[in-house]
Amino acid sequence: MQKINLSQKLGLFNEYWSPKIVGEINDSYAKLVKLKGEFVWHSHEKEDELFLVIRGKLVIRLKDRDIELEDGEFFIVPKGVEHMPVANEEVHVLLLEPKTTLNTGNVRNERTVDAEWI
Amino acid sequence: MQKINLSQKLGLFNEYWSPKIVGEINDSYAKLVKLKGEFVWHSHEKEDELFLVIRGKLVIRLKDRDIELEDGEFFIVPKGVEHMPVANEEVHVLLLEPKTTLNTGNVRNERTVDAEWI
Repeated sequence: MQKINLSQKLGLFNEYWSPKIVGEINDSYAKLVKLKGEFVWHSHEKEDELFLVIRGKLVIRLKDRDIELEDGEFFIVPKGVEHMPVANEEVHVLLLEPKTTLNTGNVRNERTVDAEWI
Repeated sequence: MQKINLSQKLGLFNEYWSPKIVGEINDSYAKLVKLKGEFVWHSHEKEDELFLVIRGKLVIRLKDRDIELEDGEFFIVPKGVEHMPVANEEVHVLLLEPKTTLNTGNVRNERTVDAEWI
């Protein structure tokens, strides 16, 4: 039971596309992640997923449009909606999603990672 | 299904201690709230509650210590833990908590408000 400083936690890792757990809220985790480049198209069958940009710019591609986020902006990808995060430059993101959420959604592939606590 | 800009939403209201819903994630709401002064001691029997400071300084008093938060810091008050938010100056906070969460926790009193969407 301690406070979390986002910048301090973000200083603890450098890998991209590897969410780190920083908090537990009921059935969900708060995670920090650094993104750069393109991810893969995926969806989460049963889980909404919140992306809050802390630093940088993030594009969340949807099938019918792009959502462009800057710091201080968030977007919630509803369950079942296909999306692909894209970051032209490094971006730092706070994620909020159920503990069951896999980063690659309904499939396991070479981009799948299991989130760890930092 | 649209992005949320925290500053824009915070510009839409001025009341203190009156959380506004800005997003729905699974069984939880993301809410924005402006705080100034002292709240009341309360706890949430079944709900963890996340406080992320967007601007300003927030103290979350616990029975055995104070948690002092600045912008870019969050604290999760676990279910059942008595707490009292205190803000000497105006502070802007993003809350994450189950939809069932009442601002005054397990009691309804003169400080109780029902959160509305903005």
